[in-house]
Amino acid sequence: MHVTLENAEAAIAKAIEKAREINTFMCVAVVDSGADLKAFHRMDDAWVGSIDIAIKKAKTAVFFGMPTGEIGKLSQPGAPLFGIEHSNGGLITFPGGLPIVDENGVMIGAIGVSGSSVENDHAVATAGVEALGSSELPAHPWRT
Amino acid sequence: MHVTLENAEAAIAKAIEKAREINTFMCVAVVDSGADLKAFHRMDDAWVGSIDIAIKKAKTAVFFGMPTGEIGKLSQPGAPLFGIEHSNGGLITFPGGLPIVDENGVMIGAIGVSGSSVENDHAVATAGVEALGSSELPAHPWRT
Amino acid sequence: MHVTLENAEAAIAKAIEKAREINTFMCVAVVDSGADLKAFHRMDDAWVGSIDIAIKKAKTAVFFGMPTGEIGKLSQPGAPLFGIEHSNGGLITFPGGLPIVDENGVMIGAIGVSGSSVENDHAVATAGVEALGSSELPAHPWRT
Amino acid sequence: MHVTLENAEAAIAKAIEKAREINTFMCVAVVDSGADLKAFHRMDDAWVGSIDIAIKKAKTAVFFGMPTGEIGKLSQPGAPLFGIEHSNGGLITFPGGLPIVDENGVMIGAIGVSGSSVENDHAVATAGVEALGSSELPAHPWRT
Repeated sequence: MHVTLENAEAAIAKAIEKAREINTFMCVAVVDSGADLKAFHRMDDAWVGSIDIAIKKAKTAVFFGMPTGEIGKLSQPGAPLFGIEHSNGGLITFPGGLPIVDENGVMIGAIGVSGSSVENDHAVATAGVEALGSSELPAHPWRT
Repeated sequence: MHVTLENAEAAIAKAIEKAREINTFMCVAVVDSGADLKAFHRMDDAWVGSIDIAIKKAKTAVFFGMPTGEIGKLSQPGAPLFGIEHSNGGLITFPGGLPIVDENGVMIGAIGVSGSSVENDHAVATAGVEALGSSELPAHPWRT
Repeated sequence: MHVTLENAEAAIAKAIEKAREINTFMCVAVVDSGADLKAFHRMDDAWVGSIDIAIKKAKTAVFFGMPTGEIGKLSQPGAPLFGIEHSNGGLITFPGGLPIVDENGVMIGAIGVSGSSVENDHAVATAGVEALGSSELPAHPWRT
Repeated sequence: MHVTLENAEAAIAKAIEKAREINTFMCVAVVDSGADLKAFHRMDDAWVGSIDIAIKKAKTAVFFGMPTGEIGKLSQPGAPLFGIEHSNGGLITFPGGLPIVDENGVMIGAIGVSGSSVENDHAVATAGVEALGSSELPAHPWRT
């Protein structure tokens, strides 16, 4: 199962509502469970550099079925995944990317947010996910 | 001047309305006048391979301020611009990409559509542009 | 608003004057507010490896509207933006890249300098920016 | 021997003078004999897509020590070098790139021009080369 366009629009609308509420200017990307872009919105005045980061956060979250910040803990110097960012055309492993998991525990896509502090990016991504389901994935099977 | 998010959403909504009317499944991208992605929607059941083509068509249209199909006429074997597609990280030079020009004759961005025949792609892109202005650029000045 | 060619030439001339004054050999790049290259000069005897660094510093500064060195503080191991350099085709996050902000507080582009110590790179970039305005950006709105 | 910064500035100034004379808006790049960028100017209102094309034309001319248009004749379908554009990170093989050869017959760099018809691009590149020498290369040795 993949996130539908209607799903993606709902998640982005909620994310942007949250972004406005906390006075930030965000790029918001939604990918499907194959890590292919489904929808993207760049708010006016958002950093141009956040376009690619938002998309890469969404892809990273779906590539490994976990929040980007979790991967970042494992990719620090000396940690097991040091340098993983060099794979898959470039990953972003700090917070702001979250899997989107439906009511059956199936990962249907992911959301990626960039444009402010990583705390704000994460909060806006969370708001987007909550429009559709959760970001908590059961162990397996989780792929659509 | 750049296309706003409100502009981009209006253009994409009109494009998708047209795509549904002619029973097609499209990817629609809008970039600003610096060729940076502003918004993107992939309709359900659209080709995954059309994501990149739609984005590259929009970028190509803004890179040269003209419909992508015009460039394609010039890039055929034996024609003056043969091989131009190798520039700028890859161009798409068949129809489906159009500049978006405001009422003052300023290019504020471009739209790119992919997912069906080039005739249909072009028709859907045209519908998107008409939500905002025209795709006819005066000679100069045209850059924001 | 974008930096004009006249602006870019003035900034580069000042930067190179400063580079000569402190006996360094620099690459100097100016990009517009869409991060697209406007002008570039490589002084004789400057490192060939500095070409790409100067351009990437200028792009990085405009991508996030801040001095490259500020991003570098946040991208260290354990810091919030660790690994951000993997985005946008490669960022450079040590000093030497600065936004160019006009008298209305609008970011019209950025300058990137590479070829010596980061202190010297930063000093030369600063001289270039001062030919046109400042590198201090108001909170918002700042995009052209 | 490499083109100096003074050389590159002189070539670009002449090229831009010619561009203005024929009412065009050009990107002009000069590379040294190692195909590394020496200087670049984008005139106001020039196509953003011409940045990369001008640089690639200059590189292509120095890569093979001949005008880009000569390579283009050989890279047509059925011709000996069909597809050569896929090498070296992307070549541009239509007119507008010319080697710069000094009075001793040594290739010291190349110029690349993009922004108008290939005839105009070639005329502007020629004007730039004439500020420094010729674009006619003796058989060999020609490398610096």
